[in-house]
Amino acid sequence: MATYQRIVEAALEVLATRGWRHASVAEVAARAGVTRGAVQHHFKDRDGLFTASVQHIMDTRIHEIEALQHADYPDGERTRTIVHTIIELHQGTSFTAALQLCVAASDDPTLRSRVAAMELEVGARGFWALIELLRLDGNDPTVRTTVQAFLDSARGLGLAGMLNDDSRRRRLVADRWAAMLDELHTTNPDTRLRPNP
Amino acid sequence: MATYQRIVEAALEVLATRGWRHASVAEVAARAGVTRGAVQHHFKDRDGLFTASVQHIMDTRIHEIEALQHADYPDGERTRTIVHTIIELHQGTSFTAALQLCVAASDDPTLRSRVAAMELEVGARGFWALIELLRLDGNDPTVRTTVQAFLDSARGLGLAGMLNDDSRRRRLVADRWAAMLDELHTTNPDTRLRPNP
Repeated sequence: MATYQRIVEAALEVLATRGWRHASVAEVAARAGVTRGAVQHHFKDRDGLFTASVQHIMDTRIHEIEALQHADYPDGERTRTIVHTIIELHQGTSFTAALQLCVAASDDPTLRSRVAAMELEVGARGFWALIELLRLDGNDPTVRTTVQAFLDSARGLGLAGMLNDDSRRRRLVADRWAAMLDELHTTNPDTRLRPNP
Repeated sequence: MATYQRIVEAALEVLATRGWRHASVAEVAARAGVTRGAVQHHFKDRDGLFTASVQHIMDTRIHEIEALQHADYPDGERTRTIVHTIIELHQGTSFTAALQLCVAASDDPTLRSRVAAMELEVGARGFWALIELLRLDGNDPTVRTTVQAFLDSARGLGLAGMLNDDSRRRRLVADRWAAMLDELHTTNPDTRLRPNP
């Protein structure tokens, strides 16, 4: 794995487990198996290391969502597969690391403006990628608010999965979301039979 | 305000802004305008102070949800009012304090089992209170997963509201949820005309 990638993954692990205040460059370097100098070569300073690592994983997640566009799905399983994938992307270390950053930013004016802007930008990109992926009409207010409710739900499932094994319930909620999102096609005949682009 | 209540509110403020590791009994006492001895009179130790304060606010929230049962609603506004209220209960200091506790617990085995149990118990009580409030059939799998998706969404909206002023989008998502939850009655004629108990 490239050094940059190794450092980012180590930074997310350290941020997720230690929290913003206790996450150190030294621990990231040790965990990535590189020198502190190597970390400094790639990242301006400590805060830059952790914010850029969260930004990097967010970008990666958006690309993963966009890449689903070209995946093959079994008949009738397209929405369900996409919904399950997006919900699972909101679980685990990268979710916890992003959450640690948000919680820290909520009480730190400098960090807050940076992280708030990142959240808005990533949120908008994820939203439009999903609209595209589900072949929905992003100009339809009902479509927009339903997709937003789904993305909020995915975040809420991320929280619920942090403390308890919530995987069974999560699958049931995901199946229900697939049905609710598919209903948007049924009520909107224009998009119902839109061919695979 | 009673001393206990003052201490709890101060503890939530301190936990929300300082985070689990930096939240101190001294700051809580100062903020509540009481002595450290007064705090120790009500709470066993530091960890007990903060976990009991989160438990207390969760209990209060559940009682607030249950109390909505007896509220008067304008015609056709019942579901919408309930949905908006529940979403707004997931905003602000008490949400951030609970989140700080969850994040800390995710990496602390002792705290984790306690907080995980609290989350399951509060989650189940909130779920059933809402089923009752919306006069839905809790045995219907579609009803159950839709209500769970809504509560996950409310949590996700809590996260989104921490960094940006998300109130406009939140109102739109809330209205959409009111419509989706009302549809559960339409598709289930038994509950459609159930009288106000």
